[in-house]
Amino acid sequence: MRIQMYDLAGADPARRFSPYCWRIRMALAHKGLEVETIPWRFMQKDVLAPSGQGRVPVLVHDGHWVADSWAIACYLEATFPDRPSLFGGAAGQALSRFYSTQGDALVGAVAPFVVLDVFEHLDAGDRPYFRSSREQRFGKTLEAVVADREARLPAFRDGLAGLRAVVKQQAFFGGAAPLYADYALFGAFQWARCISPFRMLAADDPLAQWHGRLLDVFGGLARQAPGYDA
Amino acid sequence: MRIQMYDLAGADPARRFSPYCWRIRMALAHKGLEVETIPWRFMQKDVLAPSGQGRVPVLVHDGHWVADSWAIACYLEATFPDRPSLFGGAAGQALSRFYSTQGDALVGAVAPFVVLDVFEHLDAGDRPYFRSSREQRFGKTLEAVVADREARLPAFRDGLAGLRAVVKQQAFFGGAAPLYADYALFGAFQWARCISPFRMLAADDPLAQWHGRLLDVFGGLARQAPGYDA
Repeated sequence: MRIQMYDLAGADPARRFSPYCWRIRMALAHKGLEVETIPWRFMQKDVLAPSGQGRVPVLVHDGHWVADSWAIACYLEATFPDRPSLFGGAAGQALSRFYSTQGDALVGAVAPFVVLDVFEHLDAGDRPYFRSSREQRFGKTLEAVVADREARLPAFRDGLAGLRAVVKQQAFFGGAAPLYADYALFGAFQWARCISPFRMLAADDPLAQWHGRLLDVFGGLARQAPGYDA
Repeated sequence: MRIQMYDLAGADPARRFSPYCWRIRMALAHKGLEVETIPWRFMQKDVLAPSGQGRVPVLVHDGHWVADSWAIACYLEATFPDRPSLFGGAAGQALSRFYSTQGDALVGAVAPFVVLDVFEHLDAGDRPYFRSSREQRFGKTLEAVVADREARLPAFRDGLAGLRAVVKQQAFFGGAAPLYADYALFGAFQWARCISPFRMLAADDPLAQWHGRLLDVFGGLARQAPGYDA
């Protein structure tokens, strides 16, 4: 058995920061599966062609290509049912889908804080595409997007009240131990940690402590990744 | 066995609109449990004294008092384990807590649209308390709070993207059938439906269709409630 994952990388191939790829790195570790990650850049859409689309993560398992983080998580659960469950059962799997879409929303909320930092870490070949596509999306320059990020931070943190209330009561969204739901949300915070010195969460935020617990699991897999952890 | 629930009512005792009470009405129906609902008004905090606090829902089961919608849901699950599960297992229960806090956040997001409608349905004795406490919370008159609600509606609906993405893919947050997670979110929309002619969701919104499916379950329990359904 061989598992490979195309994983977004910066100019430094060791800097891996995609929030969606982080979900799957954690899911693979949860399943106890070894993976060979292949650094990938935005300009390499052609190498993903067998997956039928052009975004990462893409998993290649014994020649079988799977794209999209949610689809990959479901594939891993179905393919390795005897390993620790990512969902905790059928109801848990259904309930986890909202964590996936909520994780997507969180990526959208984090983006206007870190998008310039992403740009600055990218390989030179990726920069023109990234700048033009993101500036079109935001309707302004990357520098203008992040200019007022300090002022926007309190509203961002206030918007996390629903998430924060949970981790005040239990260690992980999945309960005493993490599940895929945790990784789906974690991705957005890990993205910020890997790409930007800007602190999305105050150190005493229960969500920062939850993030810290996830940095520690699987032998510190996520903590050891190049990033800006204090 | 006797189950009673203190349930917020308007001037018309048949108008029951509390988003938190609706969660429990649906949870009781899910468990197939009969309940005697007792109309309750804000000025009757004293009758809830045995619960140790002053808010509804309060459940009274064979003399045992339980407050707080999440605590009541967990109580029902633990007390009636042989009836249909509200959570779908231990992982599902842990994963459902975020739906509860997200439902709370949704109540907060709906409030500035319907708070004047709530006031206008209240019993005369409840009105002074409600107006002064909510005007203090919002920092303006109830009339001023709702004045720009049409203008704020697109942003509210955009904020539901994470929820909407789920019910485009599956009938309920719990999967093919609803779970407590559904009821936790449903409460906020049912609150609006019961108290206000203002439409929080466009008719063709997948979330409106999900709401409609929940209006139909349990013999149309929620659809039959006095409200403003089209």
